[in-house]
Amino acid sequence: MRDVAIIGIGHTKFGRASKTSLELFSEAALQAVDDAGVDLKDIEALFQGAALPGFEEGQVTPAAFSAAELNLGGGSIPATRYEGACASASIAIREAAEWVASGQCDMVMAGGVEKALLMGTLFATRIFAMACHAPTEGPAGLTFPGVFAMAARRYSKNYDIPLDKLREQMALVSVKNHKHGALNPLAQFYKKMGDLKVEDVINSKLVADPLTVLDCCPFSDGAAAIVLCAAEEARKYTDDPVYILGTGQGSGGALSKMKDLTKPDSRIKSARMAFKHAGLRPSDIDVLELHDCFTIAELIALESMGFFEWGEAAEATTEGQTESGGKIPVNMSGGLIGKGHPIGATGASQVYWIVKQMRGEAAKGNQIDPVPEYGMTDTLGGDFGTLCHIILGRGK
Amino acid sequence: MRDVAIIGIGHTKFGRASKTSLELFSEAALQAVDDAGVDLKDIEALFQGAALPGFEEGQVTPAAFSAAELNLGGGSIPATRYEGACASASIAIREAAEWVASGQCDMVMAGGVEKALLMGTLFATRIFAMACHAPTEGPAGLTFPGVFAMAARRYSKNYDIPLDKLREQMALVSVKNHKHGALNPLAQFYKKMGDLKVEDVINSKLVADPLTVLDCCPFSDGAAAIVLCAAEEARKYTDDPVYILGTGQGSGGALSKMKDLTKPDSRIKSARMAFKHAGLRPSDIDVLELHDCFTIAELIALESMGFFEWGEAAEATTEGQTESGGKIPVNMSGGLIGKGHPIGATGASQVYWIVKQMRGEAAKGNQIDPVPEYGMTDTLGGDFGTLCHIILGRGK
Repeated sequence: MRDVAIIGIGHTKFGRASKTSLELFSEAALQAVDDAGVDLKDIEALFQGAALPGFEEGQVTPAAFSAAELNLGGGSIPATRYEGACASASIAIREAAEWVASGQCDMVMAGGVEKALLMGTLFATRIFAMACHAPTEGPAGLTFPGVFAMAARRYSKNYDIPLDKLREQMALVSVKNHKHGALNPLAQFYKKMGDLKVEDVINSKLVADPLTVLDCCPFSDGAAAIVLCAAEEARKYTDDPVYILGTGQGSGGALSKMKDLTKPDSRIKSARMAFKHAGLRPSDIDVLELHDCFTIAELIALESMGFFEWGEAAEATTEGQTESGGKIPVNMSGGLIGKGHPIGATGASQVYWIVKQMRGEAAKGNQIDPVPEYGMTDTLGGDFGTLCHIILGRGK
Repeated sequence: MRDVAIIGIGHTKFGRASKTSLELFSEAALQAVDDAGVDLKDIEALFQGAALPGFEEGQVTPAAFSAAELNLGGGSIPATRYEGACASASIAIREAAEWVASGQCDMVMAGGVEKALLMGTLFATRIFAMACHAPTEGPAGLTFPGVFAMAARRYSKNYDIPLDKLREQMALVSVKNHKHGALNPLAQFYKKMGDLKVEDVINSKLVADPLTVLDCCPFSDGAAAIVLCAAEEARKYTDDPVYILGTGQGSGGALSKMKDLTKPDSRIKSARMAFKHAGLRPSDIDVLELHDCFTIAELIALESMGFFEWGEAAEATTEGQTESGGKIPVNMSGGLIGKGHPIGATGASQVYWIVKQMRGEAAKGNQIDPVPEYGMTDTLGGDFGTLCHIILGRGK
């Protein structure tokens, strides 16, 4: 198996877009090939994440039409859509890396796209709940805010943290991620809510007790794309290749069969797979983009991945350990909460922002100093149904 | 890269099912592991095709829930859904073969499932048209019967075959495939329409001129699954391994940009990729399961794949060259027309029936004699948006 490098990246502005998803993905794709200094015709296969294009634009098999629109590879190349809810693009990138690593392809494009705002937040919340277990969670009327409200209550109970105290600790996640999002020109909330206070989060509109609207990421339109090639070829194209050192993927079932909503096996096993594959440990990672669909989601992700002991992430956040200069800087891009969450694009956006960090090109105020050696992404699809991790390194 | 073998297969009865898609896929999966003589816990990853589960059962990310339901690999293994319209399962199998070939996995499961009849044929026809190019073909009100009616007219014009004559030649495809379907106990039309006459096809209800309802495959519920492992391990599990010798995949865009609806580049390039990968030519193939979503589709597929010269497949069909004993026996299972078409499962069903042929276990009257050495599947997603080919061999 060959090592794999990322040599080009592209990313649209997240938020409400007037462009179609075909146009959004094309924008990111053109940026990525331009950034890599390669031609569209050099791309041998397209791996595209898209969660709900049928419901949004009446379009399934979107990857084929993106490949055609861009005339990738001169036409008719393999183009596959991956649907793993929010983890769609991360799965696509993991598969893309596999086809390059095996030597079957030399240069490929991966990424994702979503027009989630076409549906409106209320309808999107219901439609997107189809990533819950339909036979048992559908009839219960469960949507994702409800799932994570339950997770917050479970977390509070597990570790004897009074709900009021946890409420404040969760708010700090929102404050931190909005601060970074406000500095990120491509973020949905760029120049907005950068000086949010804990009280603002607590006093905003209640969504699913104890979560308020500022505990929740928004739905978004957007796309992100990357170009991958064999590591040994990477320096032909760029002075700043970023290497895919390890990936992991895991799956889970109905919530009713989970022992503890805050300790999903799917994430634990996926993260371990990625660390084993990379030959690294959590303490090696310098920067992390993780799936903060809700503030509580950031806390429990950190523990399942091994960055903090069980029950310690909330306090660690309060201590600033997830900020720049802390033990592990988390979501310096703004994360889903500050940057936005175009479902099928999110995993590719996370990789984009780790690469930017490793190039020293993150937004001013968000860039880690010194430039990180190792970074990681964590992407969650559904209510722990699909997890995907990607570990990246600058190489020496 | 290692060679890859299929060591176990499973297939539900196609037609209207009272089971959910989770249950249908489980039925096929349990058959497949039983057939392979392995345990569910031996499976390291699941690759599942499913085209429209959100619209059918309000369930996306179905692969994760199938993996959980079956406790594959002891739980939490990578489980990915592939959506490439009708080609979904073939893409899933192609990816599964890649992960085994590269050495990243030793034993995996691939397959597909669909509950297409949940929607009813009229609604399903409209919903499924989302695999057409939404921006241009959606507003035109195009559905797949319309696409293939246009293809029939183009074929007639291209080769100066009077439409009445082509009408009869197409009907022969329906007669042949229904004859085989009637003999196949797992087919939707088992024991039905086995003695269909050309006049019956021509005189049945008109759907999209010149196609009648008997030129069209039905929508179906059903699932199929296979177990794959490294070729060098295959004989530990079975005396009849079937090897994946080559795969191909191609993509296409809007019909308005195609030069000729009967000669899609996506299929031409995908088939060439598979033949090149396998080191074989069309003349080496002994049995073929191809995507006869409509009778005309069988004719044009044969030409794009190189089994007949342009414009010669219709006459060849009349001469019996696509029957047992002919140049290339096609759709001995009944194909989509006689066996049924559970969209996301079809590619896996095609592979299932090639394996059955190679084991000498096809239904009486459908089994080729002598047992074929080389077989091939052709699966079409959308209106030439996604094509996938898999070439199989018994080995010596």
